[in-house]
Amino acid sequence: MERHFHQDLETLKAELLRMGGLAEAIVHKSVEALQRRDLKLAEEAIQDDRLIDRLEVDIDHHAIDLLARQQPMAVDLRFILAALKISNDLERVGDHAVNIAGSVLRLGTAPPVKPLIDIPRMAELALGMLKDALDAFVRKDSATAREILRRDDTVDELNRQVHRELIGYMVENPTIISRSLELILVARNLERVADLATNVAEELVFFTEARIVKHHLEETTS
Amino acid sequence: MERHFHQDLETLKAELLRMGGLAEAIVHKSVEALQRRDLKLAEEAIQDDRLIDRLEVDIDHHAIDLLARQQPMAVDLRFILAALKISNDLERVGDHAVNIAGSVLRLGTAPPVKPLIDIPRMAELALGMLKDALDAFVRKDSATAREILRRDDTVDELNRQVHRELIGYMVENPTIISRSLELILVARNLERVADLATNVAEELVFFTEARIVKHHLEETTS
Repeated sequence: MERHFHQDLETLKAELLRMGGLAEAIVHKSVEALQRRDLKLAEEAIQDDRLIDRLEVDIDHHAIDLLARQQPMAVDLRFILAALKISNDLERVGDHAVNIAGSVLRLGTAPPVKPLIDIPRMAELALGMLKDALDAFVRKDSATAREILRRDDTVDELNRQVHRELIGYMVENPTIISRSLELILVARNLERVADLATNVAEELVFFTEARIVKHHLEETTS
Repeated sequence: MERHFHQDLETLKAELLRMGGLAEAIVHKSVEALQRRDLKLAEEAIQDDRLIDRLEVDIDHHAIDLLARQQPMAVDLRFILAALKISNDLERVGDHAVNIAGSVLRLGTAPPVKPLIDIPRMAELALGMLKDALDAFVRKDSATAREILRRDDTVDELNRQVHRELIGYMVENPTIISRSLELILVARNLERVADLATNVAEELVFFTEARIVKHHLEETTS
């Protein structure tokens, strides 16, 4: 029974990692579609999100089933609750990738309004944060989790920079307003992916240290 | 013991309702600040959000404590898990209100770029959905929950309409680009509040019927 339970926890962890891998891949694909103006790739990203949605439902089922059957205590209970929250975070990462793919479809094959430098950089940073947060989760490495929380500031700053720059373009050339707006929205979606990576890191700190670090109100759970 | 547990569940429900009331109030306040160009009211909305963040942490503590101490089964287990998810949804509602208040501060006291008709209408619809979802949660009324899911389409359509209209304004008059963009962002935040109300409704269906309706993949939990 005990052994079986630990196998179930390992399965749950493996499912989360698979979902994390898919979530990273779909964000990467949507940004690549933007860079290449590849509408087919954008459609593919939108399709791929269905698999992520499916995995969230599966993970929720397994987690709830484990809670109901095993009535776990302490660290195992916190792990399962963290898994539920992380699956929700990853599902939202998928939704942001779908939003980006939607912008790609609306932008179509017209030449970009500006060279894409900051947006791919934001994607790289946000995906690095997400990957490291999930790796840290597997290793129960809360020191790395805290470091990830700090990296979010760089992504926020890039988002503000993209926003300011594109407003400048729009003012100079009103014919590109719609297209500039799409890029502003893409940047905001990437900024939200980085936020969700920090959520995963926060869940990890909760799970390993029994502390809730959300909202910078650090306190020990009872 | 049993009686004590049911009192604990009632307390958890009361905390959720209080948090829901605060979340509604802060969205209402941020939109009122927009309509009146009242920067002080916007600052107030931003301050109020700290209380919502605090309540989320409290509710999470209580829910986790109940799971750990009481090891609830079936409907009680599902109720506590739903409470955890709903508190997360309400916290995000608060964040959207803060985003709106941020737009109000950036817009300042300059006259609005267009009469505000659709945006207050969106706020009214989204807040109605949120209120009804929480009321339905208390009454365990999953029929109302399903009806709320359908109301989301109207808010989505209004959001698209605001977006199209403001792009038109920006093209005609590049000097109002920044200010029009803020209104587009306000509308998107309200559209997200309506989405979060549908999340609450989905959690209710899960809790009362043991079904996950997310992503339109309806299935019975094991």
